Amino acid sequence: MQDFTFYNPTRIEFGKGKEANIGSYIKAFSVGSVLVLYGSERIKKEGLFGRVTASLEEQGVRYQALGGVVSNPVIRLVRDAVKVVKEHNLQGIVAVGGGSVADSAKAIAAGATYDGDVWDFFIGKAVVEGAIPVFTVMTLAATGSEMNPYGVVTNEETRQKYSLGGPSLYPKVSVINPELMATVTPDYLAYSAVDIFAHCLDLYFTAKVFPEFTATLIENILETVLRTTDVLMDNPGDYDARGEFAWASTMALNGNTFVGVSGNTFDTHMIEHAMGALHGIPHGAGLSVVLPAWMQAIKNDNPARFERFANKVFGVAGADGGIAKLTEWFSAIGAPVTFAQAGLSADDVDPIAENAFGNAKLWGMDPLYPQQRIADILKLAVK
Amino acid sequence: MQDFTFYNPTRIEFGKGKEANIGSYIKAFSVGSVLVLYGSERIKKEGLFGRVTASLEEQGVRYQALGGVVSNPVIRLVRDAVKVVKEHNLQGIVAVGGGSVADSAKAIAAGATYDGDVWDFFIGKAVVEGAIPVFTVMTLAATGSEMNPYGVVTNEETRQKYSLGGPSLYPKVSVINPELMATVTPDYLAYSAVDIFAHCLDLYFTAKVFPEFTATLIENILETVLRTTDVLMDNPGDYDARGEFAWASTMALNGNTFVGVSGNTFDTHMIEHAMGALHGIPHGAGLSVVLPAWMQAIKNDNPARFERFANKVFGVAGADGGIAKLTEWFSAIGAPVTFAQAGLSADDVDPIAENAFGNAKLWGMDPLYPQQRIADILKLAVK
Repeated sequence: MQDFTFYNPTRIEFGKGKEANIGSYIKAFSVGSVLVLYGSERIKKEGLFGRVTASLEEQGVRYQALGGVVSNPVIRLVRDAVKVVKEHNLQGIVAVGGGSVADSAKAIAAGATYDGDVWDFFIGKAVVEGAIPVFTVMTLAATGSEMNPYGVVTNEETRQKYSLGGPSLYPKVSVINPELMATVTPDYLAYSAVDIFAHCLDLYFTAKVFPEFTATLIENILETVLRTTDVLMDNPGDYDARGEFAWASTMALNGNTFVGVSGNTFDTHMIEHAMGALHGIPHGAGLSVVLPAWMQAIKNDNPARFERFANKVFGVAGADGGIAKLTEWFSAIGAPVTFAQAGLSADDVDPIAENAFGNAKLWGMDPLYPQQRIADILKLAVK
Repeated sequence: MQDFTFYNPTRIEFGKGKEANIGSYIKAFSVGSVLVLYGSERIKKEGLFGRVTASLEEQGVRYQALGGVVSNPVIRLVRDAVKVVKEHNLQGIVAVGGGSVADSAKAIAAGATYDGDVWDFFIGKAVVEGAIPVFTVMTLAATGSEMNPYGVVTNEETRQKYSLGGPSLYPKVSVINPELMATVTPDYLAYSAVDIFAHCLDLYFTAKVFPEFTATLIENILETVLRTTDVLMDNPGDYDARGEFAWASTMALNGNTFVGVSGNTFDTHMIEHAMGALHGIPHGAGLSVVLPAWMQAIKNDNPARFERFANKVFGVAGADGGIAKLTEWFSAIGAPVTFAQAGLSADDVDPIAENAFGNAKLWGMDPLYPQQRIADILKLAVK
């Protein structure tokens, strides 16, 4: 069992209607003004924006609103938002949306207390030493951003999809109301399921030290996602399934899966970030293409782990059986598993591999993943 | 899925030798002086006391030491310690020991910022509104006290074993070094295993709303305790088993098992606290007597849950099979399962039931547990 530090101070407020209390949650932290950050204007039509801002007004929390955060959120909007926060001297941020909004909010929060360019945090030119408080109201469960200190943002100019992190970026309070997730489209539900799988499987298949308790916890997360996704595809309004899906998503990246683990790397994320950076493919869709190919490529590095996965998660024998079952399931829920299904062609392999190799270098994974090896993995998905 | 708040700000520092950093962990919270609270003087001979105090001295953290905390810790020592803290104007507490020491530390921490008698917090006469910071260095894994805001203390005069709690009582940092637990005696290892089982099973068998993810998490904790206890009985120095046992213990009462749950009560704890209050029986030993009897008494209230337990945890069919397996295992690891084995007789039933009924009233469980029903459960353990 590897030494570890477990620390996660985010408070989760889980349940129906909890977004209506966001003003009081914020007020309790002595935050008197916030940026309300969101994505599509749909949240206005649906009433969520109104409920959040009414709660702020009720508590006398001054706010500025800024929308337009997109899937694969971009640094341009983050930079603009940092300006707004500084100009209006805002003391906190409320992210209302999915992982893209929460991730952008973290970058903005760090940028708000920094004099240089916020992108510096992503390229290792600056370390996040402080941030204004972040709060979230989640409308999508996938990235785990509501209960971790990480954020991923894309620089469109340099074509880099990079991440930032730091203890001050844990959201203070995150609202998870499964009802707010009931309108997620089937394709985004599928991408979300894949994202959770990837968070778990990157670790599951690469961990060198891997306590049984942690392995079983991860299998519990995967089984929960399998079970609840299938329910939700048929019945999007199933509150309990939506709730368990959401909590599994949070647990997949809030520190619990790292307990006692060492040697793990984020292989599929390293590769997928290149697909997002170059092609703007939704994160989960990119992962869905990469994951089965990567599993094929590495299955002989750890046959026992693959055997265990097949057996525990899908009730079948053999590494290939497990990979086949996972691939079938991704297809069944509508996630792409080939380049063509993701709108890519064989010509895209080398540029993606080149970009991904940049990530590998940044994350210290380049000895394991020379550019050619990344290209070879991607080729397994060109069918 | 029931609405819930999840909040646990305790930082866990898990691993070999981490107690040697306790001074810097404390210093980071701007705490300049502490009470070092401990149980037996053995920690001096074994060097642990010296390592902790050397670390404090290194960081310039002033300290007063106070030992003598016993299993079923008593309010008398807590009151004395509050005086010491106030007299020396100490800013924090380091608990070095097991759950009894950590629980006492929490009571002292609350008492330090309160003008009245610290027992007021236990009998509902006062609410814990503040406390000086608590840090722990654990030498036993059982109660989960290192990562929760609860403490249980006995009032020898009134013969009440009661609890206190409040958000300010989460330890700031807890050190879990499995090596410090390698010298736990086999009987206390057994009692610890039983305590973890009881934390889980009180909830498991009484929850009305019980998400599948949470149920499976609890089964994971139980399986981990079964597996690692058996390893440790043969090989007390097995670091990985000791580590997984410790983490399972922490997870059993740090909030994760309550996620999405409602309707649960703490039945065996309600009864056992009376055995501890009247007879000073080690907590786990008392629980070991109560748990199988209680399961027999309530098995028909929730047959599906008992069937599931038997199947998932012990791989057998039927409620009775599961109860038999659990009872056998308790016996096999050396925990008492009858009154006689715990040094009690049939004459003790009624006084224990009467005392336990006091707990039932305090916890609002008296409609479910009239005194006679508690006596009937206890009689099942008189063999």
